[in-house]
Amino acid sequence: MTESSDPVAHIRPFFEPQSVAVIGASPVTGDESFNVVDNLAQTGYRGKIYPVNPKYSEILGLKCYADVTEIPGKVDLAVIVTSRKRVLPIIEQCTRKEIKAVIVIAGGFADAGDDEGKRLQREMVEIARRGGVRILGPNTVGSANAFIDFSTSFVKQTGIRELPVGLVCQSGLFFGTIGRLRLLGKGLDIGNACDVDVIEGLEYFEQDEQVKVIVLHIEGVRDGRRFRNVARRVARKKPVLVLKTGRNVLAARAARSHTGSLVGRDEVWDAVFKQCGIIRVDNLDELGDLVRAFTYLPLMKGRGMGVLTAMGSVGVMSMDFCAEYGLEMAELSASVRGRIEGMPPEWFKAGNPLDIWPILMTSSRPLGENLRALLSAVMSEPAVNGIFLVAGAWFERLSPPITEVLMETADAFPDKPIAWCPYEGWLREIRAEDLSDMLEQAGKAAVFTSPHGALKALAKLAEYYEFLHYNG
Amino acid sequence: MTESSDPVAHIRPFFEPQSVAVIGASPVTGDESFNVVDNLAQTGYRGKIYPVNPKYSEILGLKCYADVTEIPGKVDLAVIVTSRKRVLPIIEQCTRKEIKAVIVIAGGFADAGDDEGKRLQREMVEIARRGGVRILGPNTVGSANAFIDFSTSFVKQTGIRELPVGLVCQSGLFFGTIGRLRLLGKGLDIGNACDVDVIEGLEYFEQDEQVKVIVLHIEGVRDGRRFRNVARRVARKKPVLVLKTGRNVLAARAARSHTGSLVGRDEVWDAVFKQCGIIRVDNLDELGDLVRAFTYLPLMKGRGMGVLTAMGSVGVMSMDFCAEYGLEMAELSASVRGRIEGMPPEWFKAGNPLDIWPILMTSSRPLGENLRALLSAVMSEPAVNGIFLVAGAWFERLSPPITEVLMETADAFPDKPIAWCPYEGWLREIRAEDLSDMLEQAGKAAVFTSPHGALKALAKLAEYYEFLHYNG
Repeated sequence: MTESSDPVAHIRPFFEPQSVAVIGASPVTGDESFNVVDNLAQTGYRGKIYPVNPKYSEILGLKCYADVTEIPGKVDLAVIVTSRKRVLPIIEQCTRKEIKAVIVIAGGFADAGDDEGKRLQREMVEIARRGGVRILGPNTVGSANAFIDFSTSFVKQTGIRELPVGLVCQSGLFFGTIGRLRLLGKGLDIGNACDVDVIEGLEYFEQDEQVKVIVLHIEGVRDGRRFRNVARRVARKKPVLVLKTGRNVLAARAARSHTGSLVGRDEVWDAVFKQCGIIRVDNLDELGDLVRAFTYLPLMKGRGMGVLTAMGSVGVMSMDFCAEYGLEMAELSASVRGRIEGMPPEWFKAGNPLDIWPILMTSSRPLGENLRALLSAVMSEPAVNGIFLVAGAWFERLSPPITEVLMETADAFPDKPIAWCPYEGWLREIRAEDLSDMLEQAGKAAVFTSPHGALKALAKLAEYYEFLHYNG
Repeated sequence: MTESSDPVAHIRPFFEPQSVAVIGASPVTGDESFNVVDNLAQTGYRGKIYPVNPKYSEILGLKCYADVTEIPGKVDLAVIVTSRKRVLPIIEQCTRKEIKAVIVIAGGFADAGDDEGKRLQREMVEIARRGGVRILGPNTVGSANAFIDFSTSFVKQTGIRELPVGLVCQSGLFFGTIGRLRLLGKGLDIGNACDVDVIEGLEYFEQDEQVKVIVLHIEGVRDGRRFRNVARRVARKKPVLVLKTGRNVLAARAARSHTGSLVGRDEVWDAVFKQCGIIRVDNLDELGDLVRAFTYLPLMKGRGMGVLTAMGSVGVMSMDFCAEYGLEMAELSASVRGRIEGMPPEWFKAGNPLDIWPILMTSSRPLGENLRALLSAVMSEPAVNGIFLVAGAWFERLSPPITEVLMETADAFPDKPIAWCPYEGWLREIRAEDLSDMLEQAGKAAVFTSPHGALKALAKLAEYYEFLHYNG
């Protein structure tokens, strides 16, 4: 790392290029074309795009160059989309053009089964070092930055949104959506990580003011000690979520062959993450849930949960999950219980979890007003640090609608996170996903598809708060 | 249990009533009306519906009776929708009308905080016993049977489909959808379980030829020994999935107050489920995944997995999850490897997990044909007992489309389950959900939203096969 005024200057071109050369560009479009030039243009990138291919004089309406050195202006970033055997001479040309950042999309290097692949990768790095070029990849989809509508992905980019999420990964998986996982934001697929590595990505996002949450997908790192030092520093500033795969020995070996990176024993990783205050994630669903929680919710300033549920059964489940994840059911004080028990039915005893259905069904007030009164009562309990609500998506039809109730509640108690788990009802036109977008973009609540997912996410908000409190 | 010719005769009216009286029926319709008569009619139930309420002479175009005893014909099932204090005399009237099955929807009995609720429930059971009536509930949404478009749910029923799934639960949750969970089929919400219990539901589904998979949501049972004996017998005939909540002591206490049922230590439950060959499920997402697997896939006749993935990173994750869930990566024999390595790129080494992307991108054949050849090669490996495929939903645009490839593969290898995890791409009009419906309804593959979900489901197919093999 340099001590210059811009310590991440060498990474910046991958995220903020003002001009991009695509070398090996093709005029073929359509579903099976995987055309980077076409995708770049369609994503809406407003910088200069220079297709490079000696076979064409024009590609998709853009002037095409035979060679990068023929491009008249400055080129911030080169994306090489040829097969492996043509990559090395092209990188030589990039150094002559004084391009400082190159993405090598092709696989078949350290990830391949043969010695030739390893040799090519080794030599590629030597050329880059000599020429002062930084290489992202090989075996990558490259980089993306939703804030400037930029992505080098050869698969068209639609999951890209201006989320305050910075992602470093070793797979194109994370540039798309899988399950409920939509992460970009800004993304860096380090692929085989022959040069640019996870640590540099982490340091870039450390200083990036558009990034509030950092996600790492790691199969291995080269310099464990440096990773630990940087991660420990960054995790005190922004939450860092890590999906570390290759847990078991065989998988670790496969990871090595996939990306050629070094791997360590999983227990060691676990200890490092704990020390650093990094939040380890077990699977993709959990990653999606935690990104939601850390992006849209305030931290939880204690482990006291308040659970309101229209289904008594989910109250019982919630107690199981709270015990498993280290949350506690807050005890409601007499005054809060009194506020709740002042509502019908007369036999109702207020507890936590609070089964809200009997009150909703019995009271003569509109259901939405009852919901608001109940949420407000539980939120006012000092022992409650966050709320988990289970209520149908169709509660949006109540008066007032549930999103309005949740927004008001969030405004009244801005330091207590609200996690909502909606179940669908007969009103299929009311989609939980739309309500989720509305609430989340307003930063008022995060919406989860499962009770265990919601509660695990809240538990991590509490853990990270504690980490900052004791180590910040 | 009786030894009569129809040992489940007393439960049958809850699933196959030819006439239903709704007592306390209301003419009010609309979103907050929770009108059972309206819902029954809208679900499409073709039996007789008798609204009962002294205040009206007609409800929703149906003649309304002041009292059940005034109904001219036979009544198979009564659904009581009044509040708790009016229930007991109504049950008396039902006994006079010789109704044999009664559903009590209201809560406020053993689930309430007061002694009055407990007293009412106790007396209700006494009246029922004397009168030879069976009671489902109280504190229930009742019963449902998609095969006759029947549901007593006061929330309109749309998740109901003719699935070969029989559900016994203690919550209305399972009559709706939450996350990807859609279960009905046939459902019995035993609620407080004052009379009809989980064991009777289990025995009903044991003999029901429309039911192939049984799901139990249990907070507690009254007679643990009898549960074990019945469950052990039933699990040898049909897979029984159990979501047992109230794992921790406090949650168990809450479960008791929610439904008044007895609960035991969680370790004991675990041991009982293992002994019986019952498949325990940890959360709602997992329940949805396992129902899919057991409903649509053949059992897995061994623990040898074949993993094909368009994302190398998911191959690494898959190895982690296989190790965690007790599956093994099958070793590919030289002949199978040879078939795969005969395809370009020349540097490609065939392994398991098999990274299919390099071949798809390099070969000049249409991508769909490559996919078919790769699937067929791995399937032909005798050590492979099931397949996990990771490939974009947009592979449906390939030639041939992925659903066609999967259907052909399933036909060629009918005893090896195929689990597909599609990720979304830029072709948003191709929805994984639609492809999933098509494949699943044809019984050719099950579709999962996450790698860990898919692999856990496959592991359970292998475990249940082993259970049957050694205990069947």
